[in-house]
Amino acid sequence: MLIDGLQCGHFTRETFEELRRADVGAVTVTCGFWEGTVESLDSIARWRDLVAANSDLVAIATTAAEIETIAAGGRTAILLGFQNSNLLEGRVRFVELFAELGVRAIQLTYNNQNELGGSCYEAEDSGLSRTGREVVREMNRTGILVDLSHVGNRTTKDAILCSDKPVAVTHANPDSLFAHKRNKTDDVLKVLAEKGGVLGCATYRNITGDHYCSSLASWCEMVAKAVDIMGIDHVGIGTDRSHNFTKPDYDWMRMGRWTRGIDYGAASAARPGKAPPPAWFTEVHHLGLLPGGLRNVGFTPAEVEKITSGNWLRLYRDVFGAAEQRAAAKLAFVQTDPVLATTPRLSAAS
Amino acid sequence: MLIDGLQCGHFTRETFEELRRADVGAVTVTCGFWEGTVESLDSIARWRDLVAANSDLVAIATTAAEIETIAAGGRTAILLGFQNSNLLEGRVRFVELFAELGVRAIQLTYNNQNELGGSCYEAEDSGLSRTGREVVREMNRTGILVDLSHVGNRTTKDAILCSDKPVAVTHANPDSLFAHKRNKTDDVLKVLAEKGGVLGCATYRNITGDHYCSSLASWCEMVAKAVDIMGIDHVGIGTDRSHNFTKPDYDWMRMGRWTRGIDYGAASAARPGKAPPPAWFTEVHHLGLLPGGLRNVGFTPAEVEKITSGNWLRLYRDVFGAAEQRAAAKLAFVQTDPVLATTPRLSAAS
Repeated sequence: MLIDGLQCGHFTRETFEELRRADVGAVTVTCGFWEGTVESLDSIARWRDLVAANSDLVAIATTAAEIETIAAGGRTAILLGFQNSNLLEGRVRFVELFAELGVRAIQLTYNNQNELGGSCYEAEDSGLSRTGREVVREMNRTGILVDLSHVGNRTTKDAILCSDKPVAVTHANPDSLFAHKRNKTDDVLKVLAEKGGVLGCATYRNITGDHYCSSLASWCEMVAKAVDIMGIDHVGIGTDRSHNFTKPDYDWMRMGRWTRGIDYGAASAARPGKAPPPAWFTEVHHLGLLPGGLRNVGFTPAEVEKITSGNWLRLYRDVFGAAEQRAAAKLAFVQTDPVLATTPRLSAAS
Repeated sequence: MLIDGLQCGHFTRETFEELRRADVGAVTVTCGFWEGTVESLDSIARWRDLVAANSDLVAIATTAAEIETIAAGGRTAILLGFQNSNLLEGRVRFVELFAELGVRAIQLTYNNQNELGGSCYEAEDSGLSRTGREVVREMNRTGILVDLSHVGNRTTKDAILCSDKPVAVTHANPDSLFAHKRNKTDDVLKVLAEKGGVLGCATYRNITGDHYCSSLASWCEMVAKAVDIMGIDHVGIGTDRSHNFTKPDYDWMRMGRWTRGIDYGAASAARPGKAPPPAWFTEVHHLGLLPGGLRNVGFTPAEVEKITSGNWLRLYRDVFGAAEQRAAAKLAFVQTDPVLATTPRLSAAS
């Protein structure tokens, strides 16, 4: 099976069918970019409906064990993630609430500075702010993965060091392989690896470059070079694939509500539109070619397993553990509390 | 008459009576610290009710001319201000909406970094961010004063230079006179003055220090030193006086929703509680002593007039002009539009 650390866009039944065809066992989906608290709750609720309507193909997972069970049963586990921290609206106590509602990954910033830290597109990256430090610790405590993909390099380093748990850059590439503000410098990637984190290598052309998009072999060579930088235990896949995105979606993603002007995000004035997918990845189910592609550039089966799923699973097990423990403690309390345990359940009483 | 660039707290009829007793012709009140959009609208609505219930003493002003008329009529003009930009929730288009609802001052950040810029208490000040630049320009266009009091020195400088209009540090003191993160370094104050801005000297003990709080003369000496730094046209009064604040108010002000820990704001672990007011300013109406105090340290009547009201009025005239022009254009459109001008009014039709 394969785990994709980040996808976005409008998922449909056809998308889920394609993911199954590629044996994608888990994917972290993007529930929001700029959305505030209520809009984010709305997005989670819509995701629940979408997953329920396609329960033969997908299920929401909140633990590593659930991912394994769902994938073993021939379905794709959906991990609820956000590409920004706007869902919190600056409230440190909301981290716990969203964790209980199943959110398992939050990117500290999207393309712009916020109250947590600096973004990769700001002229100056502040580093992790006072609020940022509080939120990272709270994410550790409640079992949410700290995602640093669009975050500035300085804030990324600060967050790696501030976090008690390993963190992730779910969708970016090494800047030394393709220079782009969205990509991470080797020094950052090395600290990420030292602290047990994972980089999800992206296939998004704007941050991958034409060369590594030209063939499956060249993209897998890029992964091999990332492994050279970080080690075999710290590289995974995070395609940044967007489904069914049209201009209004890109406009929202890039301009949100912060500007009346034009912003190109990871694109540029010269190439402003939708970047074409890599030559080998025109259909979502082509993801299924990756294990073979990685073997062909020299990885052993055990190494391919780490890159395609094992590294993410190890990270998820470590990070989501806090959420599992909290859920278990809550259940134990209900079962052993003298009042709650003897109170007839609503279903029995009604 | 006297203009106070910033007060906060719970205003009551007694507060308004005290302001009248001191001949305060205008005061910018704090409608919010951490409040988001809806909470901020709520605060504006509550301020309208409070002002309506005390319309013999106060009135909301949105232009410099209104301030002069209200003050000349023996009342205190209320300027609606916010000590943070959370009211916008990152939406650049909301600046215009709040301007139309009468907001005339927004501090870019309170004590913590946000999407606009860095605060004076962050380890690193990012400078004015991408969103910050958009919002400052929009405030210029819609006639809202950019307040930089709690903002970090770097972001303060950036905002002074980014703004087409003069800006303000409504409530702080020169750091060279009393060293405190909340106070501004001389280089910042000089750029502020060069661009036509105004510093409102504060009486809040935590950022003024015991020496300048010890007597009316010593506080007025501090003002004289600020004038030495910035020039007579760029110093005003911004007491930072808080009315009827109790511990829950300070807790909200300092901790908001961003931390579960303890934060002391401008206070410290050694002096955590409510800072006592200056010896000469135990009652709000003692503000009325300021003109005499300033004369006693050597200012001429014309200089006293600038410090106590003239400098603020000049700044307000310049900044609020954009709001006046927008309101006038709207009115002209309604009066001259062929459809609107001939449509019977609702009141006539119903």
